[in-house]
Amino acid sequence: MTAGNPSSKAAQETIADLGENEALRRTVSRLNSGDYAIVGSGDDAAVVATSDDRFVVTTDTMIEGHDFRLDWSTGYDLGWKAVASNVADVAAMGARPTALVVAVAVPATTQISWLEAFADGLREACQSLAPGASVVGGDLAASNQVMIAVTAHGSLEGRAPVLRSGAQPGDILAVAGTLGRAACGLSLLQSGEATAISAYDDWVNVQRRPQPPIQAGIDAATSGATSMLDLSDGLAKDAHRIARASNVTLVIDRAQLSGFEAMLEEPAMRIGASAIDWVIGGGEDHSLLATFAPNVVIPRAFKPIGRVISRGPANVLLDAQPLAERGWDSFAS
Amino acid sequence: MTAGNPSSKAAQETIADLGENEALRRTVSRLNSGDYAIVGSGDDAAVVATSDDRFVVTTDTMIEGHDFRLDWSTGYDLGWKAVASNVADVAAMGARPTALVVAVAVPATTQISWLEAFADGLREACQSLAPGASVVGGDLAASNQVMIAVTAHGSLEGRAPVLRSGAQPGDILAVAGTLGRAACGLSLLQSGEATAISAYDDWVNVQRRPQPPIQAGIDAATSGATSMLDLSDGLAKDAHRIARASNVTLVIDRAQLSGFEAMLEEPAMRIGASAIDWVIGGGEDHSLLATFAPNVVIPRAFKPIGRVISRGPANVLLDAQPLAERGWDSFAS
Repeated sequence: MTAGNPSSKAAQETIADLGENEALRRTVSRLNSGDYAIVGSGDDAAVVATSDDRFVVTTDTMIEGHDFRLDWSTGYDLGWKAVASNVADVAAMGARPTALVVAVAVPATTQISWLEAFADGLREACQSLAPGASVVGGDLAASNQVMIAVTAHGSLEGRAPVLRSGAQPGDILAVAGTLGRAACGLSLLQSGEATAISAYDDWVNVQRRPQPPIQAGIDAATSGATSMLDLSDGLAKDAHRIARASNVTLVIDRAQLSGFEAMLEEPAMRIGASAIDWVIGGGEDHSLLATFAPNVVIPRAFKPIGRVISRGPANVLLDAQPLAERGWDSFAS
Repeated sequence: MTAGNPSSKAAQETIADLGENEALRRTVSRLNSGDYAIVGSGDDAAVVATSDDRFVVTTDTMIEGHDFRLDWSTGYDLGWKAVASNVADVAAMGARPTALVVAVAVPATTQISWLEAFADGLREACQSLAPGASVVGGDLAASNQVMIAVTAHGSLEGRAPVLRSGAQPGDILAVAGTLGRAACGLSLLQSGEATAISAYDDWVNVQRRPQPPIQAGIDAATSGATSMLDLSDGLAKDAHRIARASNVTLVIDRAQLSGFEAMLEEPAMRIGASAIDWVIGGGEDHSLLATFAPNVVIPRAFKPIGRVISRGPANVLLDAQPLAERGWDSFAS
């Protein structure tokens, strides 16, 4: 999982020592080849196979100091998370992830071992979360802070894309994956309490290496989900997005969140935080929120947490109370 | 071309003033819709049409202070260049550019007018260089320096991709587009001589807003080009890439470069630079270098500049002399 012995001289070589071409070569050599790359890295562009005459594409950026800290996440973690957060968006359309391109900008003083670990994270996240998918191209640039921009692609395999705009009154609201764990992990890291971080490393690791339920997204599309999105900014904020796009009101049943909450109560007590705030407001678990017509068999990975009603004055209700739209804003101070 | 009156209060609003969602909304509203977007911006991902069961994809990054300076290029210039440099890579595969996603990271203090001008540059470059193509998605993030990561897609329309590896001894080597003008423009900017910059603004503008010959790439593929690449790092460096990938030697005929050189002699004399160095070593014109079998009709946009011979000791010869591999390295000091 790590890039050799970090105390060895070779591991301490910087990208500037090696030059762009050699650093790229070493990085690319660690990637898997995947099932969809007709032409992979090394030409002006890659050529990727699709299963029909459409493809799904999404892009997301991670910036050092804003979206991650190098003392909290390894190169491996960041490679993993870059893949995970993007294939979650592909799956949220009901598509199967097929190919990614990765642009990474790093200071010239960055050790090659960091970049190799980053590539390992990319490879293992593809293999674990989205088998068959691979990184088919990329770019390596010099910068003052680390920036990672990933573009992920997917294949709809003949299915219609599942948009945010299709929820209908009467539908069931359901979630696949965890809620609040990544936010809990972030709070633990921010607490600086080393023993708490160590005791609850499962939570911290969801923040570092999220596990989006990719197959659940494909299953939801097959089952006829009426709307779906990736919970990257938290349940409250992302539920508002479905409500607005579909022109409906979502009602979340507080009792159905108690299982998610229970998983977080121990670490919450330990650092004096609120488990339900993490469940409702916390992003970055990259779970999937979807709606299903009441007559369909909901895929096993999805747990019902509420329902869709006709458009009322509030976008989202928690039981009977309007739920404020809160969550991540990159530019909020 | 610019984003309203910069002295007005509205134009001085920053992205932090507006918040991420409103800043994104204003930016996206300036983009064109294009011919290939089945689902555009606003969902977890976009859905793009292809003309067959493959797509071409490439990514490239531009970093403030390394790849551009904000006092030399406007937001509009950078939007244009981000599109131009990426659609050139698509065209170099023989594909027609269809859709782009753009990740931009900027300081929170950036004025919204800069971002709007950037979007105008994206739109107008798509419309001018690659009609039918459009930006179908993106990401806006906070950072300390401006970073732009673009991923461009293209459709092969049933053609085989043109790789770097297909050049054969006996082929003609030819270039479509200009050589050395962007490097000349950069040298003019670096000279700081305001009157020279103004007098030779056509050259400076190639640096700011390159004009890659997109249709020429498609025509080359249709004509059966055996290899092709985007001259982003300069003729010398990129010719080496074709030679290595194809296991051949390229011979560049110095006399055939004199037309390119003549266009640069005036500004070269003005600032004491070498026109031929720009022609041979200068990148960023985003012209296309291709090889063609001797019996084919070479598309009008291409000018022969040499030929392919069997693999010898040198990758590239300029007349009879080995040509060193020089050009852009992001991490070179």
